[in-house]
Amino acid sequence: MMKGNMPAIGIDIGGTSTRVALVDREGKILAREQEETAPQKGTKAFVNRTVEAVRRISRQADEPVYQIGIGCPGPLNPFSGTLLDPPNLPGWDGFALKKELETATGLSVTLDNDASAAALGEARFGAGAGQSSTIYITLSTGIGAGIVINGRLFSGATGNAGEIGNMIVQPGGERFGTLNAGALEGLASGTAIGREGKRKLGLDGKAETVFTKAEKGNRYAEAIIEEAAGYLAIAVANLANSFDPAVFVFGGGVMQQERMLPLLKEKTVPLLYPSMQKTLRLTLADLGQSAGVIGAALLPMYRE
Amino acid sequence: MMKGNMPAIGIDIGGTSTRVALVDREGKILAREQEETAPQKGTKAFVNRTVEAVRRISRQADEPVYQIGIGCPGPLNPFSGTLLDPPNLPGWDGFALKKELETATGLSVTLDNDASAAALGEARFGAGAGQSSTIYITLSTGIGAGIVINGRLFSGATGNAGEIGNMIVQPGGERFGTLNAGALEGLASGTAIGREGKRKLGLDGKAETVFTKAEKGNRYAEAIIEEAAGYLAIAVANLANSFDPAVFVFGGGVMQQERMLPLLKEKTVPLLYPSMQKTLRLTLADLGQSAGVIGAALLPMYRE
Repeated sequence: MMKGNMPAIGIDIGGTSTRVALVDREGKILAREQEETAPQKGTKAFVNRTVEAVRRISRQADEPVYQIGIGCPGPLNPFSGTLLDPPNLPGWDGFALKKELETATGLSVTLDNDASAAALGEARFGAGAGQSSTIYITLSTGIGAGIVINGRLFSGATGNAGEIGNMIVQPGGERFGTLNAGALEGLASGTAIGREGKRKLGLDGKAETVFTKAEKGNRYAEAIIEEAAGYLAIAVANLANSFDPAVFVFGGGVMQQERMLPLLKEKTVPLLYPSMQKTLRLTLADLGQSAGVIGAALLPMYRE
Repeated sequence: MMKGNMPAIGIDIGGTSTRVALVDREGKILAREQEETAPQKGTKAFVNRTVEAVRRISRQADEPVYQIGIGCPGPLNPFSGTLLDPPNLPGWDGFALKKELETATGLSVTLDNDASAAALGEARFGAGAGQSSTIYITLSTGIGAGIVINGRLFSGATGNAGEIGNMIVQPGGERFGTLNAGALEGLASGTAIGREGKRKLGLDGKAETVFTKAEKGNRYAEAIIEEAAGYLAIAVANLANSFDPAVFVFGGGVMQQERMLPLLKEKTVPLLYPSMQKTLRLTLADLGQSAGVIGAALLPMYRE
């Protein structure tokens, strides 16, 4: 059944821009485009623009394309292919993205959240390639994760596997938004680091500013970063002890700060069993900005 | 290849007694024996007694038996089939159980820890039957777990998947034994409940006594139980948000206390996303004392 490259279309939807690419079964991008997402212009305009991009991209394939995979900011229902109430896509609540795009293109559409798509990309062709199991964690404005076992994305019973932002790492801790009190995302995300910078140091609320201050030797800024890394280390150790993946792969803007990976390792390793300390790998993502669109194209083939 | 019942031998090793059973592929026990484990008599005596039991049991099968599966108290290496330093089997450190039993019987042996074996039994033929994914949690002296996805035991990269006793649920909390500070097992196991009964109420150190006191209306005993259930609820919610299993199945002596499951549900549900609150099942184990030996017999067929 596997003839040629069997390319698929990957679509990586972000709050500001959307990537559309033709990706083959080896994870190679054969053609790509980028358009604005412009959620404020409505879902119909987005579908129209995306259908055109899909047509242009498909024409560049040597063989017919049958499948589209989409990574999109959550929350969403990956089985029905419907968005719930994604905070980064205002006005798109309840958008039946899978159905509308299937009707408009005649192709089969698989939808999952952006962290899951990136996890699949990284696990198959990035930093997790060749490993029996990968947990991918993205640390940016929010915190998300995806679990890939034997090269297949594990979605969970309701499609919520990887929602580690809601993991409680400080029982009785402060509550942010709709998260649990003391949840990881409220304590260790870029948003959390920026917020503490504002609260404690009167900075501008951006995580980047806290990192810059810390680099310049500000001990209070350093303490904010260490605290966030400490909570993330608890989450990583808890996942390691529960799920024992071969590798953790870290992506997202905050992880691009040079301090983060060494600091995270330093804080995580003492929380692991000695046998795991030697074998568990914590590493940075490999595919950069392309992980999402490559993984999205793989979703139709490699989701449980 | 599947002819007849394809029965296998299951062996469930406990600190005091060992169950040996002939189990078919439908999880039905066709014949069974129970012997003493007697770790103090040494590993050679155990192997000799077990080989005899295996021979007697095999004779009752209608077709040849090729495989033995063993569930055993950890820590152990399920891939090499060697025990590490199991506290409940004193003197058995480094015991190459798989290899010795293979040599003595000529049969293929698969070893895993007792919680994993019970998880597989419950997931395939007990309270998790028919579910896409099951997390089985046993709450007794210690706390262990097993993860079963699509009917197959997920062992993790180093065979440590399910070691949730070491999950940190109270950062900066007290440290017990070699566990992490604030680890689940130190705060919510039967041992922990008994210890708090002794510390706070001068009781005999048994969990059961704390439950009896609480039933009689002792508010301090009740508070000890509620606190333990609260930590377990955090662990369950963290696992639900990370892996999103279809069902959690609870076994072990402490879960046989009638108070526990309702209390655990009451404390877990508010920590879940609304969508999960409706669908996630928390339920008691179904196979009772037989889960371990049934699951052990299934290990050779259904381990990742």
